[in-house]
Amino acid sequence: MALIVQKYGGTSVGNIDRMRNVAKRALATRKQGHDVVLVVSAMSGETNRLLKLVNEIAKRPSERESDVVIATGEQVSVGLVSLAIQDQRGKARSFLGHQVRITTDSAFSKARIKSIDAEKVFEALKKGEIAVIAGFQGQDEDGNVTTLGRGGSDTTAVAIAAALKADSCEIYTDVDGVYTTDPNVCPKARKLDRISYEEMLELASLGAKVLQIRSVEFAMKYRVPLWVKSSFTDDPGTLVCAEDASMEDLVVSGIAYDKNEAKIAVRAVPDIPGVAAKIFGPLADANIVVDLIVQNVSKDGKTDLTFTVGRTDLTKATDIVKKVAKSVKAHGVETDDSVAKVSIVGVGMRNHSGVAAKMFQVLAKEGINVQMISTSEIKVSSVIEEKYVELAVRALHTAFGLDGAEAKKAARA
Amino acid sequence: MALIVQKYGGTSVGNIDRMRNVAKRALATRKQGHDVVLVVSAMSGETNRLLKLVNEIAKRPSERESDVVIATGEQVSVGLVSLAIQDQRGKARSFLGHQVRITTDSAFSKARIKSIDAEKVFEALKKGEIAVIAGFQGQDEDGNVTTLGRGGSDTTAVAIAAALKADSCEIYTDVDGVYTTDPNVCPKARKLDRISYEEMLELASLGAKVLQIRSVEFAMKYRVPLWVKSSFTDDPGTLVCAEDASMEDLVVSGIAYDKNEAKIAVRAVPDIPGVAAKIFGPLADANIVVDLIVQNVSKDGKTDLTFTVGRTDLTKATDIVKKVAKSVKAHGVETDDSVAKVSIVGVGMRNHSGVAAKMFQVLAKEGINVQMISTSEIKVSSVIEEKYVELAVRALHTAFGLDGAEAKKAARA
Repeated sequence: MALIVQKYGGTSVGNIDRMRNVAKRALATRKQGHDVVLVVSAMSGETNRLLKLVNEIAKRPSERESDVVIATGEQVSVGLVSLAIQDQRGKARSFLGHQVRITTDSAFSKARIKSIDAEKVFEALKKGEIAVIAGFQGQDEDGNVTTLGRGGSDTTAVAIAAALKADSCEIYTDVDGVYTTDPNVCPKARKLDRISYEEMLELASLGAKVLQIRSVEFAMKYRVPLWVKSSFTDDPGTLVCAEDASMEDLVVSGIAYDKNEAKIAVRAVPDIPGVAAKIFGPLADANIVVDLIVQNVSKDGKTDLTFTVGRTDLTKATDIVKKVAKSVKAHGVETDDSVAKVSIVGVGMRNHSGVAAKMFQVLAKEGINVQMISTSEIKVSSVIEEKYVELAVRALHTAFGLDGAEAKKAARA
Repeated sequence: MALIVQKYGGTSVGNIDRMRNVAKRALATRKQGHDVVLVVSAMSGETNRLLKLVNEIAKRPSERESDVVIATGEQVSVGLVSLAIQDQRGKARSFLGHQVRITTDSAFSKARIKSIDAEKVFEALKKGEIAVIAGFQGQDEDGNVTTLGRGGSDTTAVAIAAALKADSCEIYTDVDGVYTTDPNVCPKARKLDRISYEEMLELASLGAKVLQIRSVEFAMKYRVPLWVKSSFTDDPGTLVCAEDASMEDLVVSGIAYDKNEAKIAVRAVPDIPGVAAKIFGPLADANIVVDLIVQNVSKDGKTDLTFTVGRTDLTKATDIVKKVAKSVKAHGVETDDSVAKVSIVGVGMRNHSGVAAKMFQVLAKEGINVQMISTSEIKVSSVIEEKYVELAVRALHTAFGLDGAEAKKAARA
């Protein structure tokens, strides 16, 4: 008998019939003798409906009150899913964020989980009940309602699985697993049976929307085996787990892209200590996430500093950077909101040289100019013109042997 | 400077514009130098929308989970109203039932408030914030979400006013005060400037839908001056307050009716001690509220026992009573679901004789048969055929001098 946490996203609980289906799946797992904990999102469309009300009533809605409104989406879901289970003669009990004591910091709208007191959940499981927990929400130490930001229900699920020391955490979604790349862009994309936390983390942070990045971080930290499955099929899905030797056979496991990128270049910045801090400090203070940063070799005591931010943050970031640029006597600030990032990811890279070089060759062959480069142990990212993204993804997918089952074998050689 | 609790019902917060209006009114009160606490209901239609989901997903929805779903209606309202106040440059902070520690018993869907810990509300007021509290909801001692039943937001408002020792509690609604009777039935109905708690309690419990009965009980117990006002006009409304001498000038203050009545008659019950308990015990256990009870004079050791229940409870009640009737060897059970109750209410009755007699004369003159009678110190109720209700109300309204301003004077003579 295992303890299994199942998370169902907005599409999976999108209407009454789908909720009944979730109840059925949960009960089937229960009947196999397992303890079952569900984490559910708001019904699809509900969060947007609530956000619309919030933005209609206030020009600059306070995040505390927005969170109060938006957290109701998950509350409705847990009640209804519990009722669906009970209607199928199962036992169920719903839990809200504050009832499971999902304590977060006070960063409304993007709070981080600090602790979970799972005692009440264990009590429910002991009684044979399926615990149905509201995703996405928590409570700060002053008792305020907080939400974890988009995709936060994944994080709730993994955090709950970690707190309960669950045997596995299954993320049910509208896709049947993690793919080598976005099948909408590359028809030859393949579903992966397994992928390491590290790779998934890179893919998630690079814009693959299957799992929320923080949920993967949590899973990796607490070694929670994470399944990505479809709530509409019985496909076994993809297991996200700790790396093992066999995973390194494959140099590149997946290709990610992110169109939500904008580039800011600060020209001829005096190359003296502390200048970078002067630029990135105020951006951090404004909660703007800076992604790639590239600094050219200094020339005449001046250097060019180029970096990317989320496209929605571009205006705000540009305002801040222009002020700083003036104060540090840089020559000027240039921006470009039509860039995108393409990345190849794989733990196998660690033991293979020339992976980055191969990527640049592939892109060059397609006539795609690489504007910025960033590498990590298991990833190479290139910033390119947005219009080339799909072409780049397909070319890299083929070049790194990810196309179909046959191609996979060939790449191992 | 006073501390004022204002309660806005579902119609008053029915859409974004109306919420803005509520914010404006609250801020106007704040600008007069008062501390303001708002209690708000779910947007009109919202509770029904949620109930529909609940009843769609489960044939016999558990009340615990229904409450979880339904409590979200008020949660959305407090967030949005707080945002509306902030958008008008006011300070506001929303509070959910569990955040104000509105502790209730565990009678889901009709919980009763046991205590309120208003400390956090005082903290907010000290900071100059308008506290916006979710009506209708609380939390039991195990941390479960509870709701107070239909109209529960009135009760929340008065309970909050009592806990805060507020100077007054204003109930904003879509009518501009308490009327001598339902203006839809009797066009000559008049708005009352003042009415005593006792009278209001009788009117509320008799089916006048302006205020929820428990809110009036609470107000009376804690001597909270209660205003009934319109959220759409500046009419001063009706003050519900402690009785004073002048109120007794008027023999009858109002006329109420209730069509949600059904009659059950148990024929030829053996008139021995304990029989009534045998009948009413199981009804109480089934949470069926019995209203009027009439027992005829015994004849040959047998008596007829007649009583009324809410019409929706009739089937359930009849099943129970039939079983008991068989066991105590009564002759049979008869039911009638086309009865209604008409009542006259007034503290002045205490000092006037012949009020009941006059009522029966008025009804007899209109050819209306009185089937059951119940009296209290300040009330006379008659159960009649449902089809005569409107006629009875109008006739009594005129006979007891409640028609228009002129009629009032005449009645005092």
